[in-house]
Amino acid sequence: MVKVNENYTRLPGSYLFSTIGKKVTAYKAENPDKKVISLGIGDVTQPLVPAVIKALHAAVDEMGNAETFKGYSPDGGYEFLRKAIKEKDYGARGVDIGLDEIFVSDGAKSDSSNIQELFANNCRIAVCDPVYPVYIDSNAMAGRAGYYDKASGKWTDVIYMPCTAENDFVPAFPETVPDIIYLCLPNNPTGTTLPKNELQKWVDYANENKIVIIYDAAYEAYISEENVAHSIYECDGAKECAIELRSFSKNAGFTGTRLGFTVVPKDLVVDGVSLNGMWARRQGSKFNGAPYIVQRAGEAVYSDEAKRETAEQVAYYMRNAKIIREGLANAGFTVYGGVNAPYIWLKTPDELTSWEFFDKLLHEADIVGTPGSGFGPSGEGYFRLTAFGKYEDTLEAVKRFEKLR
Amino acid sequence: MVKVNENYTRLPGSYLFSTIGKKVTAYKAENPDKKVISLGIGDVTQPLVPAVIKALHAAVDEMGNAETFKGYSPDGGYEFLRKAIKEKDYGARGVDIGLDEIFVSDGAKSDSSNIQELFANNCRIAVCDPVYPVYIDSNAMAGRAGYYDKASGKWTDVIYMPCTAENDFVPAFPETVPDIIYLCLPNNPTGTTLPKNELQKWVDYANENKIVIIYDAAYEAYISEENVAHSIYECDGAKECAIELRSFSKNAGFTGTRLGFTVVPKDLVVDGVSLNGMWARRQGSKFNGAPYIVQRAGEAVYSDEAKRETAEQVAYYMRNAKIIREGLANAGFTVYGGVNAPYIWLKTPDELTSWEFFDKLLHEADIVGTPGSGFGPSGEGYFRLTAFGKYEDTLEAVKRFEKLR
Repeated sequence: MVKVNENYTRLPGSYLFSTIGKKVTAYKAENPDKKVISLGIGDVTQPLVPAVIKALHAAVDEMGNAETFKGYSPDGGYEFLRKAIKEKDYGARGVDIGLDEIFVSDGAKSDSSNIQELFANNCRIAVCDPVYPVYIDSNAMAGRAGYYDKASGKWTDVIYMPCTAENDFVPAFPETVPDIIYLCLPNNPTGTTLPKNELQKWVDYANENKIVIIYDAAYEAYISEENVAHSIYECDGAKECAIELRSFSKNAGFTGTRLGFTVVPKDLVVDGVSLNGMWARRQGSKFNGAPYIVQRAGEAVYSDEAKRETAEQVAYYMRNAKIIREGLANAGFTVYGGVNAPYIWLKTPDELTSWEFFDKLLHEADIVGTPGSGFGPSGEGYFRLTAFGKYEDTLEAVKRFEKLR
Repeated sequence: MVKVNENYTRLPGSYLFSTIGKKVTAYKAENPDKKVISLGIGDVTQPLVPAVIKALHAAVDEMGNAETFKGYSPDGGYEFLRKAIKEKDYGARGVDIGLDEIFVSDGAKSDSSNIQELFANNCRIAVCDPVYPVYIDSNAMAGRAGYYDKASGKWTDVIYMPCTAENDFVPAFPETVPDIIYLCLPNNPTGTTLPKNELQKWVDYANENKIVIIYDAAYEAYISEENVAHSIYECDGAKECAIELRSFSKNAGFTGTRLGFTVVPKDLVVDGVSLNGMWARRQGSKFNGAPYIVQRAGEAVYSDEAKRETAEQVAYYMRNAKIIREGLANAGFTVYGGVNAPYIWLKTPDELTSWEFFDKLLHEADIVGTPGSGFGPSGEGYFRLTAFGKYEDTLEAVKRFEKLR
């Protein structure tokens, strides 16, 4: 008699953004005349840049011609894309990554949820709190998180590293030494980064304690400060302890086009087993590559033309971030982030809980944001706004915030 | 201290097609003057059809325009695609499937390897032997297969249902009742199908014993005989026990474009838990949808124009299948399959093992095939040839086979 994976039955509610989506859909249905502005889900609004569109059309034409048609992608992705990544993302920053250490995928969400498969089931994970929910959810589904305690909002077997205004949203080494640490830098949702010398301490800590760091650098394109590392491999010894996840979603608007990659260095060996070999086997057996046309689009992102065009988009979003940050501060809100990341992290006013403020904002200002508590218990009393909206909508949203006070 | 998932260390060798790829690359490097013909990996060679190319170009243009740009896909896939699937794949065959029972994905390989996550770790799986290796590999990685016994070529905890010439490649109900049964029909690699009344017996068996059937219908477009079901839901009671996997790879040449879907009926409830809800949660938390442009391409596959065009491609491949089947039979080989599937299943001559015949064929005829033993222990002494090659290459390959005898 078949039995289900009981870990699923321990998951509280639905995936954060599904819940928000349902609430917003219901509100819009009840209020068809209201113009709801979404600063909620971290989804881009600017179109793919012309250089990428050009590459996509060319690749589509190749797929229509028997001489140039492409079937299954090579394991790990096409060399043309891996070469561009190797040279432009790493070589240009003085980091030497091998082509066979780069694994192209359909996006960082898949990779960040699948990567835990490589580790033993009794490994303890540590996460910044608050953080992108996928790290915990994927480990909970695999049974590595223990039980969810509703009162505390915590999983019994997860090590939380609180990041609040009290510690400037910078995590401290946890009291219990974990086996795996997830670091998302720049952090989603707080927008926090670490100076390179601070990140080096985490690498040293990991190597001393034989910990693997899962380093999610999905937002690296938004780093504006000089002393912040774009890749963890800029730190000494990181190849012996860190896996890095990258995405094309936020730097080039690929949220609906789907492309990412993961770097698993060959020097990353656990108990004599190469994680690079394991990930190659995992991807070879359970994944069939990103579409050829999308890999060509990814290659185009590295062209000089696209670099200019996507830099303009990043600047567009960061102008939004500045407008929200300064506008809300002027209106009396306490705000964080928005300097090295497209997220503004807000203290909810009047001691409101995150969900109370979500409802107030939706009903009184027709604005959708994301409750901080959805990113972890230390996110309670905070709220995330994204800078990915349209400029005009962002200006309008700030005006509505001013009226709300 | 971090530990790896030990199940990976139990996997024998590398993924079948990676091993073949390496052997062929080495042979080509040593023999640069020889024209090697591949009838090995099941990859298509005909380009995407004009109707699909047209839809791709149109969707690419949408992605380049702020007004029509698309970010994250809705959970489960765009409604335009799910509607086409509902109507054309199911409604047209008298099967009623709800839109929220259809989950669009990046292909059947991902889904067929991820679907096991829904089940308890002590569930026993049963597979046809030989079969597509992903079912066992994904369960082995999750610890559900036990240990690999090199002598027998079997995993200790997997229930094998032998399919050989002795039983016309039709599996019998296993002696030990499993919890989950994988059925790939038309079967890869043997090309076997079951008449609808025989498939009904498996559905009844599953419902009587509270077994879930994972039904892989990736090759349904190749069914040429009238009494063979295209979907398991043509059988009574299948919605209470079966999940169906579908692919655009083989019916529309999407191996390098990546699109598939999985149907999880709402009537499929295990211990009071809805598998539909679990899969929705799994996909919502660990997957971010297929690219918008690819979903539009998938929608176009259902247009009348594309239906005609892809039917021609299927006919092209099935002409190859006939040429191989008849040519090899005339040359004295014992052949099976190739009627409802693009695969020919061959008895190796002279009592050669599958890998011995692979080497002989590569070195003496410059032809790449797939060793039957790679699909399971009962595949030993057999060999798979695919009909996905070019017509001219297929004719040439048959000539070389004739000389080999």
